[in-house]
Amino acid sequence: MTDRQALSLEVKNGELLILDQQMLPASEEWIVVKSPDHMIDIIKGLKVRGAPLIGVAASLSLALWYNQNPKDRELFLKEALKLKNARPTAVNLMNAIDRLIAVFDETQGQSQAVLDKAFEIFDEDVRLCDQMAETGSLLIDDGDQILTHCNTGGLATVGVGTALGVIIRAHEKGKKIHVYVDETRPLLQGGRLTTWELEKAKVPYTLICDNMSGSLMAQKKINKVFLGADRIAINGDFANKIGTYNLAVLCHHHQIPFYTVAPQTTIDPQCLSGENIEIEMRSDFEVRGVRGSFGEVIWSPIHAKTYNPAFDVTPIELVTGMVLDHLYLSREQILAGAIKKMTY
Amino acid sequence: MTDRQALSLEVKNGELLILDQQMLPASEEWIVVKSPDHMIDIIKGLKVRGAPLIGVAASLSLALWYNQNPKDRELFLKEALKLKNARPTAVNLMNAIDRLIAVFDETQGQSQAVLDKAFEIFDEDVRLCDQMAETGSLLIDDGDQILTHCNTGGLATVGVGTALGVIIRAHEKGKKIHVYVDETRPLLQGGRLTTWELEKAKVPYTLICDNMSGSLMAQKKINKVFLGADRIAINGDFANKIGTYNLAVLCHHHQIPFYTVAPQTTIDPQCLSGENIEIEMRSDFEVRGVRGSFGEVIWSPIHAKTYNPAFDVTPIELVTGMVLDHLYLSREQILAGAIKKMTY
Repeated sequence: MTDRQALSLEVKNGELLILDQQMLPASEEWIVVKSPDHMIDIIKGLKVRGAPLIGVAASLSLALWYNQNPKDRELFLKEALKLKNARPTAVNLMNAIDRLIAVFDETQGQSQAVLDKAFEIFDEDVRLCDQMAETGSLLIDDGDQILTHCNTGGLATVGVGTALGVIIRAHEKGKKIHVYVDETRPLLQGGRLTTWELEKAKVPYTLICDNMSGSLMAQKKINKVFLGADRIAINGDFANKIGTYNLAVLCHHHQIPFYTVAPQTTIDPQCLSGENIEIEMRSDFEVRGVRGSFGEVIWSPIHAKTYNPAFDVTPIELVTGMVLDHLYLSREQILAGAIKKMTY
Repeated sequence: MTDRQALSLEVKNGELLILDQQMLPASEEWIVVKSPDHMIDIIKGLKVRGAPLIGVAASLSLALWYNQNPKDRELFLKEALKLKNARPTAVNLMNAIDRLIAVFDETQGQSQAVLDKAFEIFDEDVRLCDQMAETGSLLIDDGDQILTHCNTGGLATVGVGTALGVIIRAHEKGKKIHVYVDETRPLLQGGRLTTWELEKAKVPYTLICDNMSGSLMAQKKINKVFLGADRIAINGDFANKIGTYNLAVLCHHHQIPFYTVAPQTTIDPQCLSGENIEIEMRSDFEVRGVRGSFGEVIWSPIHAKTYNPAFDVTPIELVTGMVLDHLYLSREQILAGAIKKMTY
């Protein structure tokens, strides 16, 4: 009962394997994770990405490494904290590692207990995705033309996904939908990964550049937006992939429902509002061109100064509602303190 | 008095030369234009681009070709109409060719008169750009942080440009400004060309992806937006590079002044409102990846269906004001019929 299989993560005979998302969609290459340090490189290189998936992958790498050769608390903690700091914005990673540290301390470092907890985090993500898909798909009607941003499917979680899981579940239930996919510059998770997942699931889609969404909305070709979250503050503000805020404003202007889908583990009980969310800033080269398994090109002047935040913050005022596991909360409920109450 | 020199177009000893904008900023390569048909290839290949520049380049190619070896009316008209249809959205091209046809008819095909008219169109563009730069730069204050989209400078005209001409003129007048440059997917005119022009003019700038503008506006790091127009309807609605409408909505939401800068030749007296503007749709491959002198990569699934309009339409309600040559018209003036009156 220790093997696990997800779209882009596998545990087999005590080994952790990760599908290299930088290589998609051109090729499907699996990496055998050798250690937590190796995992950190994989996370920083964005070979594994998506807030929930990073949390699961990091905990499994820590637990499997510890299980193979138990160490003292100092060494365990050192690796745990390095993993926890691999990326700064998504809170799932921090939550997951904190849960392993807590079990370590409760059981005086019992390796089986630590491993069990990592598998529990995996299974929980699968279950939460399934709950989100069920709850969220009720918001989708026959004929909907849905825009999504970044990648929030089976490549961002170990389950069916968050926002993309909702969309694919609605399709599986036989609802006739069309999906517009924001390519999601600079790293093109929409263009590379969401398109790949939608083709696998046989959902009709159209790929667009991020600046084309308004044109479609003005023509009434988009009537709902679903996307994920990397961190949710207790007032309902949330951080998500850069470009999310632009969409929120466009939806507000066009009175188009704008839904956020995320597991409750994305809520940061320490975070009072969006202002408190640290935004990861990334390298100039990502904006000067593109780099991936598909090749590398630079089109701007070679030393062009850039601004490259990985995320932006959307205030709850612009959100229609949030799908949080089995729960759907409307903006009004969240403004009345619904998320705050959940964290008590 | 027949030689002319602009940033990306030159007439020298009766020959027309065009700077290949597809090769910028990596290298500066000039093409000798052999015929109107050759010019059409150059226009369709986006080696020459920018609504005013296309109009000037097309008329010079027609007039020089005709001047070297005068033909009958039928042949002249055939080439003229092919040129006129090289791209469908920008009205300057159509206007300029119509003016040459009119002179041809008035003078019974006098080749010198046709050539003089083409040079007149060149000189007029230089003068109009200068007027826009003077008029528009009055709207810029010390400390302004200005966002611009696409390329509207010396590479889009034969003068100092439209919106970018305004920005550079303000800098030349000693105003301390910073420019945020939208990379402008899919063809990256911002990332490749506007950055190149701003470096030449030594104006401080930051390159961003198109989906980052909202994040900057929310942080109050952008306080004005200046951009161009490819066609202006007489009610003030206008077509411009795809992504313009997203910016207009974002500015409206954040109460940031949003200015359009264009020569009066961009006004289409036949066009009552934005709904009547034909929008050019372009190929899938532009959205599936990028292609240019910098290289070619495709990151999406190879047959990904895309939506790729070259332009979008912004309603006058979202515009703060328009700089039209020496005139500045506020939204209120335009709503009261100011552009309509100009076309009588």
